[in-house]
Amino acid sequence: MVSRAMLDKVREVFERYGFDPVETPAIEYTEALGKFLPDQDRPNEGVFSFQDDDEQWLSLRYDLTAPLARYVAENYEALPKPYRSYRQGYVFRNEKPGPGRFRQFMQFDADTVGAASVAADAEICMMMADTMEALGIPRGDYVVRVNNRKVLDGVMEAIGLGGDEHAGRRLTVLRAIDKLDRLGIEGVRALLGEGRKDESGDFTKGAGLDDVQIGRLEKLYAVKADDRADYFLFMKADLVLNDDAIVDTQPSNDQKIGSYVWGNPRILDVILDEFSENKLVQAGVEELQTISDLARAAGYGTKRLRLSPFIVRGLEYYTGPVFETELTFETVNEKGETARYGSVAGGGRYDGLVARFMGQPVPATGFSLGVSRLQAALAALGKLDDAKSVGPVVVTVMDRDQVAGYQAMVAELRNAGIRAELFLGNPKQFGKQLDYADRRGSPCVVIQGSAERDNGVVLIKDLIKGAEIAQAVTDHEAYKEASLAAQIGVAREDLVAEVKAVLARHATAQERS
Amino acid sequence: MVSRAMLDKVREVFERYGFDPVETPAIEYTEALGKFLPDQDRPNEGVFSFQDDDEQWLSLRYDLTAPLARYVAENYEALPKPYRSYRQGYVFRNEKPGPGRFRQFMQFDADTVGAASVAADAEICMMMADTMEALGIPRGDYVVRVNNRKVLDGVMEAIGLGGDEHAGRRLTVLRAIDKLDRLGIEGVRALLGEGRKDESGDFTKGAGLDDVQIGRLEKLYAVKADDRADYFLFMKADLVLNDDAIVDTQPSNDQKIGSYVWGNPRILDVILDEFSENKLVQAGVEELQTISDLARAAGYGTKRLRLSPFIVRGLEYYTGPVFETELTFETVNEKGETARYGSVAGGGRYDGLVARFMGQPVPATGFSLGVSRLQAALAALGKLDDAKSVGPVVVTVMDRDQVAGYQAMVAELRNAGIRAELFLGNPKQFGKQLDYADRRGSPCVVIQGSAERDNGVVLIKDLIKGAEIAQAVTDHEAYKEASLAAQIGVAREDLVAEVKAVLARHATAQERS
Repeated sequence: MVSRAMLDKVREVFERYGFDPVETPAIEYTEALGKFLPDQDRPNEGVFSFQDDDEQWLSLRYDLTAPLARYVAENYEALPKPYRSYRQGYVFRNEKPGPGRFRQFMQFDADTVGAASVAADAEICMMMADTMEALGIPRGDYVVRVNNRKVLDGVMEAIGLGGDEHAGRRLTVLRAIDKLDRLGIEGVRALLGEGRKDESGDFTKGAGLDDVQIGRLEKLYAVKADDRADYFLFMKADLVLNDDAIVDTQPSNDQKIGSYVWGNPRILDVILDEFSENKLVQAGVEELQTISDLARAAGYGTKRLRLSPFIVRGLEYYTGPVFETELTFETVNEKGETARYGSVAGGGRYDGLVARFMGQPVPATGFSLGVSRLQAALAALGKLDDAKSVGPVVVTVMDRDQVAGYQAMVAELRNAGIRAELFLGNPKQFGKQLDYADRRGSPCVVIQGSAERDNGVVLIKDLIKGAEIAQAVTDHEAYKEASLAAQIGVAREDLVAEVKAVLARHATAQERS
Repeated sequence: MVSRAMLDKVREVFERYGFDPVETPAIEYTEALGKFLPDQDRPNEGVFSFQDDDEQWLSLRYDLTAPLARYVAENYEALPKPYRSYRQGYVFRNEKPGPGRFRQFMQFDADTVGAASVAADAEICMMMADTMEALGIPRGDYVVRVNNRKVLDGVMEAIGLGGDEHAGRRLTVLRAIDKLDRLGIEGVRALLGEGRKDESGDFTKGAGLDDVQIGRLEKLYAVKADDRADYFLFMKADLVLNDDAIVDTQPSNDQKIGSYVWGNPRILDVILDEFSENKLVQAGVEELQTISDLARAAGYGTKRLRLSPFIVRGLEYYTGPVFETELTFETVNEKGETARYGSVAGGGRYDGLVARFMGQPVPATGFSLGVSRLQAALAALGKLDDAKSVGPVVVTVMDRDQVAGYQAMVAELRNAGIRAELFLGNPKQFGKQLDYADRRGSPCVVIQGSAERDNGVVLIKDLIKGAEIAQAVTDHEAYKEASLAAQIGVAREDLVAEVKAVLARHATAQERS
């Protein structure tokens, strides 16, 4: 189950930022979605598609961004501009399911459509950070990494991969760089060149770049990594967003890898030095500088937002700033292995996506949160505070011909707002009714046999108190006594009041603990 | 948008009844779903199906019940029995969309699996009633109608339509009776016999029953309708669930059609008289009697629950009690036509559905709420009390080179928990920024030009107060003055406190109105 409490916290942040909820359907006309899946080596696959009775092709949405673009185009005149909206919903991928790989998973999206200013991108980055903290992830245990596709695209142009004719090769290059974290600098170098054989012996064809091209690219993503031994330090290191001293601009070497920061020389200067002649690089660097300035003005330092020149985001539709939220803390799983959750959210500017449906360009930016992975991470951190719902009071069935009387007790309890139910299984073995109540986490059960009925009373058996007393005893006789001690007889007409008293006692005890 | 407040109210009732939330995926293996769509004249259609990469057939769920049956079978050992669960989710139908007919709509389901007792059915009926009232629909504006497929099946048997070989014809007969409300007794009679030509001239083939068979069936669904003129009275009339005087057992003739009650002779007796030899009828009547007794014990009378011998529910998988919640009030739509919302929820016992996956029979009962239709009805009743969310405070942009400063104001407001945003559109025309704020329902905007900045102040323009003053004036000069009157200058450092004061004033004013 997706945690309702978690979704509520995300929603609160998005609404505080001025975003309004808007849903779109799970099914779209296939042609409206386009094909923008990341890492999609097989064109036209990865999406569930089918025909309706009119033989029109329909697809299940694979993300929430492409359907939003369709929705905005269709309702353009009626919407306020800029248009800020958010939505949560399931998305579908036609892939083989595997660990952490689902055919259906939930995303939570926020988008600003109709705002060309990078102030909109800066705001998305800050909102990503605020969302993590609202969920209870401490500052330092996550980081929002920022890059710009214009810088990447300009660098491509500079090494001779500009123009439509190289679109496919550019994507191969970008996806190779995107694997830096996993494959290391040598692996990426192989993928940029002739190709790479992985451990299983499978060969992946490379982008076919020459050494000069690869060398220039490395200026971008492997800044000053002239010493291989130092490489992993640089790989995790991002330039500080600003030069002030809000947070760790010059960490000592004994800090953990995940928070290393490499602050000097400034990475934007390095990139500009190498690619100074390229207009796209210039524009991209300027945008990153503006995002940095706006974030600083709003009080966000490098512990929350960082420039990361190797963040690519696999999706083809990004046109400007791209962002990724990474969880940097480690947890130990049940096998004793340390695990990291990595990226839980990502997004960027997609100025061309709405334009596909309209005669005019419509700038847009936004991000998606991967709800399932985030929930797993929160659970590992012990921050998933869905109040475990209290089990129902179970009214047991002693005499089959008295069910109407038991039903009346249940109705009284429910009318008083108490979670309650009649035992609906086979009432033959009374022990099974108590087992059921235990399994449901019931605070207490209500019992009325013929003796009690004749005397106008009911028994209330406090299961939580009973379990506590039982823990302290060892022999069977003492156990039976303990069980009886947790049981009280009350007048039938006091049923609701007495059950309320038991529940209140439990609530107080729980608050104290 | 589905109303969050509405869903929360439904959830509260379900949880009070002891049901726990459990979700299942939107996609199932086609063979796991079976084909149980109501009114499905074209076999194998009505469902969206497609193949995955392994050429396995998958389908989008068309309801929430069939996937629950699959889920319970798969997790049978791990679940407490009886197993009470609820879920909300979208379901999909491969049909031509039309008014009130969607390809995707939301259902809210609750089910008890593993309880053979009709006490489980009685509880579902009571929960349906409580849900309506929790949503604000007054008692008398809805009714939960109860019937039993055993009675219907026994009657079929009695008129010679028993056995597997008549399964198709039985369904035709049941669906004909299900149309009683729409076609009247003559229309149903035609569909039971040779067939029926509708107004458009289209002919629907009938079930081919003879007059004796039809006559006996009419004992069931057109009880004592010996006078045609009285028929519509009977059509809306159901037997009182019990003979006590909780509610209108003998209404006067001037009550509106929707609440007529026909209480004597008792309908169960009529049915038993006619079909006394049939064991299924006997069993079905006995179950209905038990439901009646349990409901009465819990205090539910005929204003909430009623026996309706012509409620069928189109789904093939029902095996015992069936229920339907009907909204009985009328509303007037924008064209001035009176409209009724009719059935908003339905369900029943489906003892065979889980068994399809297991070696053993597993009794089960439950119901589905049609969220979209219910929401439309609540909106018509004025009971959809989603608090209209307050628009964001908009910080306007007077000087493009000061965006970082405006961004800082927005961050301060947000950090104080105030919904706020920077104007992200083109700031050139200031009037457009105010138009945007109006459209978003902003309570106030924040303005700082160079003069204000030099003096260390900001202007707060109260849009709600401004609109009120503006309403009272007629000429342009007075309007300008009014506009200025709603604007105050405050010290920059008092921004958050002063905005809070404006919001507090609005909140108080709204509470008073």
